[in-house]
Amino acid sequence: MELGMNAIWVMLGAILVIFMQSGFVMLEAGSTRMKNAGHIAGKTIFTLGIVSLVFWAVGYALIFGSQGNAWIGWGDYFGFDVKEVPEGSTVAPTVMFIFQLAFAAISMSVAWGGFAERAKLSVYLVFAVLFSIVVYPVIAHWIWGGGWLAEHGKQDFAGSTVVHLTGAMAALAATLLLKPRLGKYNKNGTPNDMPGHNQVFTTLGVMLLWVGWFGFNASSTIAVGDGSFFGFVAINTQLAAAAGAIAALLIAWAVNGKADISVMLNGALAGLVAITASCAFVESWAAIVIGLVAGIVVFASMRMFEKLRIDDPIYALSAHGTAGVWGTLSNGLFATPELAEKVGVGKAGLFYGGGFEQLGVQALGVLVCGAFAFVASYVILSVMKAVIGLRVTEEEETIGLDLSEHGTYGYPEQLKAQSDKRVIPQMNQSV
Amino acid sequence: MELGMNAIWVMLGAILVIFMQSGFVMLEAGSTRMKNAGHIAGKTIFTLGIVSLVFWAVGYALIFGSQGNAWIGWGDYFGFDVKEVPEGSTVAPTVMFIFQLAFAAISMSVAWGGFAERAKLSVYLVFAVLFSIVVYPVIAHWIWGGGWLAEHGKQDFAGSTVVHLTGAMAALAATLLLKPRLGKYNKNGTPNDMPGHNQVFTTLGVMLLWVGWFGFNASSTIAVGDGSFFGFVAINTQLAAAAGAIAALLIAWAVNGKADISVMLNGALAGLVAITASCAFVESWAAIVIGLVAGIVVFASMRMFEKLRIDDPIYALSAHGTAGVWGTLSNGLFATPELAEKVGVGKAGLFYGGGFEQLGVQALGVLVCGAFAFVASYVILSVMKAVIGLRVTEEEETIGLDLSEHGTYGYPEQLKAQSDKRVIPQMNQSV
Amino acid sequence: MELGMNAIWVMLGAILVIFMQSGFVMLEAGSTRMKNAGHIAGKTIFTLGIVSLVFWAVGYALIFGSQGNAWIGWGDYFGFDVKEVPEGSTVAPTVMFIFQLAFAAISMSVAWGGFAERAKLSVYLVFAVLFSIVVYPVIAHWIWGGGWLAEHGKQDFAGSTVVHLTGAMAALAATLLLKPRLGKYNKNGTPNDMPGHNQVFTTLGVMLLWVGWFGFNASSTIAVGDGSFFGFVAINTQLAAAAGAIAALLIAWAVNGKADISVMLNGALAGLVAITASCAFVESWAAIVIGLVAGIVVFASMRMFEKLRIDDPIYALSAHGTAGVWGTLSNGLFATPELAEKVGVGKAGLFYGGGFEQLGVQALGVLVCGAFAFVASYVILSVMKAVIGLRVTEEEETIGLDLSEHGTYGYPEQLKAQSDKRVIPQMNQSV
Repeated sequence: MELGMNAIWVMLGAILVIFMQSGFVMLEAGSTRMKNAGHIAGKTIFTLGIVSLVFWAVGYALIFGSQGNAWIGWGDYFGFDVKEVPEGSTVAPTVMFIFQLAFAAISMSVAWGGFAERAKLSVYLVFAVLFSIVVYPVIAHWIWGGGWLAEHGKQDFAGSTVVHLTGAMAALAATLLLKPRLGKYNKNGTPNDMPGHNQVFTTLGVMLLWVGWFGFNASSTIAVGDGSFFGFVAINTQLAAAAGAIAALLIAWAVNGKADISVMLNGALAGLVAITASCAFVESWAAIVIGLVAGIVVFASMRMFEKLRIDDPIYALSAHGTAGVWGTLSNGLFATPELAEKVGVGKAGLFYGGGFEQLGVQALGVLVCGAFAFVASYVILSVMKAVIGLRVTEEEETIGLDLSEHGTYGYPEQLKAQSDKRVIPQMNQSV
Repeated sequence: MELGMNAIWVMLGAILVIFMQSGFVMLEAGSTRMKNAGHIAGKTIFTLGIVSLVFWAVGYALIFGSQGNAWIGWGDYFGFDVKEVPEGSTVAPTVMFIFQLAFAAISMSVAWGGFAERAKLSVYLVFAVLFSIVVYPVIAHWIWGGGWLAEHGKQDFAGSTVVHLTGAMAALAATLLLKPRLGKYNKNGTPNDMPGHNQVFTTLGVMLLWVGWFGFNASSTIAVGDGSFFGFVAINTQLAAAAGAIAALLIAWAVNGKADISVMLNGALAGLVAITASCAFVESWAAIVIGLVAGIVVFASMRMFEKLRIDDPIYALSAHGTAGVWGTLSNGLFATPELAEKVGVGKAGLFYGGGFEQLGVQALGVLVCGAFAFVASYVILSVMKAVIGLRVTEEEETIGLDLSEHGTYGYPEQLKAQSDKRVIPQMNQSV
Repeated sequence: MELGMNAIWVMLGAILVIFMQSGFVMLEAGSTRMKNAGHIAGKTIFTLGIVSLVFWAVGYALIFGSQGNAWIGWGDYFGFDVKEVPEGSTVAPTVMFIFQLAFAAISMSVAWGGFAERAKLSVYLVFAVLFSIVVYPVIAHWIWGGGWLAEHGKQDFAGSTVVHLTGAMAALAATLLLKPRLGKYNKNGTPNDMPGHNQVFTTLGVMLLWVGWFGFNASSTIAVGDGSFFGFVAINTQLAAAAGAIAALLIAWAVNGKADISVMLNGALAGLVAITASCAFVESWAAIVIGLVAGIVVFASMRMFEKLRIDDPIYALSAHGTAGVWGTLSNGLFATPELAEKVGVGKAGLFYGGGFEQLGVQALGVLVCGAFAFVASYVILSVMKAVIGLRVTEEEETIGLDLSEHGTYGYPEQLKAQSDKRVIPQMNQSV
């Protein structure tokens, strides 16, 4: 009975995390320009496909394979024996398998932020395979697969580091190698605004992600027990998202004099990303503090990357990267002894008498995982750049990836009408 | 085990009710004009944030706090002790907490309908706090928190009164104080059509709300038991929504000669709102009747408010207010003795030998709760009007709230292209 | 306890399958033109309403009614006695009722693909009633209601035949009787491209359907047990969708030289439709093969229908019809003895030593069900054509069904602006 109950709970979580891809479809399409919308939306689907197949073939094995060591999992390829339910399981391996598959796909979708509006179609196909073999499973094994960071007591309940920071570091590697979009920076280095074409899409995307995050965080309890603990995790998730949205809205209003919707939405995401590591380790007041800080940090981070001439169209570096770092570290500040003991990985944080020990482990995790994800992605993409090239031509970028990569506009009536009349505002903006 | 099972069921309900905010994003954005779309969509997110934090700090306490009386809850602020699972609980308090938080946020989102396309950003921030402290918890306590209406046997299974009527009364207060949108009424008092800009958004919004309503209604059984009763509640919910949509479509077609999509969608919502009070109290044929009447009533109500020069852009007054009244009263007509006994609040309705007693209680509930929600909101908003002002300037309203309140269009490519060519159709319409 | 657990699982499935209607809203609206968007989206809602009421009144009875025979169910109309939980039930009848209702509504939504952009509003109202009485319940009874095909061991776990092929055959009858849309074919018979107006909508639609499909397939286990089997079904569903998307992308790229997003999305759907029959009967590698073939088959099928001058705007004939046939047959190839025994309907497939027996049963099912659904739909629609007419006038089709059938544009600001300027690109395209 308990096995069945846990399976429903984790399967619901898997469905919600796969559902988050709908959020990415809308968030990314809304945050970019009309001429790229079909491409941006559609690539979420086929890369979800690639990650799924690769995860089944080797990804799961590299994380959880029973013949692994501290550095990597091994064995149990191709979904081998997943149907067996070993004695003493908390949940059926089939359900755990699809839950974990869903997480791998989220990390990939985070990474695509750094490729947006200029990478070639083939780059998505190839990097999806390589990221899902070489990058994500390594870090997931270190922290969740019984690897060396797990042994050090690194606390990352649902993946601020494993999923979000990893994806963001791949995005950083990509955006550095791809260079900014045409028209993003003037010759004197000042940035131009290139707003996404549809804030309703972006807002819907964030709300769908928010909803899916209950699967991400609360279902990561795996066991249902008396149902109290996952409810607590859900409350913390809700409060951190809430605090992130409000903090970002207010800081943008205070600093810029306008209450930017896009910043506010990234604040909500940053709150969610940050609480992901800590949702099961901290009291609710701390979840609110973590969310508030995340909302402010994401705003500062968005400005910083823009000034550094690192073009990050969907703000993946800030919402998932910077907030992922903060979330991981905050665990080393706010984790309580009771909750750390309950979860059973590491220890209490600095503010609860844990000293700098857990904070140090968290910082180590951020540094090593961040570095590995960045370097591995950078090397892969550099090789790809040399072999197949990463970026579409200037002409292709100007007409948009819907036409150049897929042969048809994503909005044929609206864009065709414009180009017939030679107005084409979206081109003027981008050149 | 039972505790865990109930927790999964109610947590699923909480997730679905929070998911309904996605429905509001799309419903409201689709029902209004392009120049306000980012603002309308985005405000759903940050006000959800505000309601969440306020509910955690004081809202839950004011409804369910253990030291309360017949008029208001008290004690247990700041999520105090929510992690404890008292002996004999049906479901863990953490899960109940987030389920109830989600309901409070829906009532708030209903209320925003009355503010649309003309209220200032600061109004959303301030009223979200005050509504969540002063208005919603009072009524929720009276009916669900063991207050005086609960003692009278007021039957409102999932909130036709508590959630929908309360929100709609706040919307009424707002729309009366804000006055109609520029261009809505001509000097001779005749109304102009100001259709929403995207019926696909509106339709998606309604369908997402419909889906979320299974959490709203069916998860309000809290206990799973043998799973039969929540299935029955879900059937009634489905049938009432179905009947409402069809009735509204047909009545609009018959009366106006055109089968208006917007009316039909409001019919579905009205069916859902109406059945919310009664879904666990009535037979399925009665659910269909309740839905059919709701579909007709919402159509008449939409016309009535338009004629009364009460500008209600998203039809919150009709779909949530009028239908909420009908739903609450219909419980006093159709509640069966068996189901009333099973739920264990009040008694059977007029058509099942209950006489006018239960109907009277329902009417009392509508009157008192409606009056309280209206008066409290009106007073709050009047004070706000005097102190900070409620409405943007005419110029701001004309250029749209995306620009005026947030500094950038929600659809920058489409609206910028238009304004560059000085066509700006959305302005012509609104002035 | 087990009853309650199964009820949660199947109720979650019902909610997910009803949620798939959101996917149809977006998929169909995105795949058609702006002038029809409100109509296309909105009709999903009111036809869902019609199907729900008819299913309650008679549909359920005609499938599962206790006094039926091998050809049709009978008795238990109007939700009769659904609240009783018979001794030995796996799940409460109320929950099974709404789960089955949701499936009936999906089959209907598939069928509408053949009516798109030219059928009159009244046709939707009338055919929704007749399809839900005369067509769907018959086939559902044959295969799932203990009818003659069930007795022959026809294996269709979640409805490749029952739901998808049935809907697609009704779509075929409709599109043949309605004839192609104005402007689809030139006088010399060559087809014109009439792309949908919004690929982001289409993509979101497919992703929502994908998510809902976990309810469709995995919840069709009904029993939870130890939770392992439904997880396995979910894995197979995910892998087939993944394989379908990738195969379709690559074949379109290879053959046409462009990696069409629309084809790729139909590949994902085709993978999902195909695995629906087999998800509980085959190993995961076979699920991938089934998905890969489905992705290729759907591409070929889309080209074939276009060449045959059968205008299928939303590709229902290919994604649900052809893929439904392939999925049903593939079960007779890949079903393993162990899984066939576990599910307990028919036997192992050709590649697992089952010989041609099960494959023959599957082929028989496809032929008879396909023929029945087509002929019954064709007869109904022919009578309707004679009596009320099926198609709007040329003028109505040219101005779009939003205006002609519902009196207002779905995108009033965008289309009104265009028509004011006499550009009206969407008209030029369609004439």
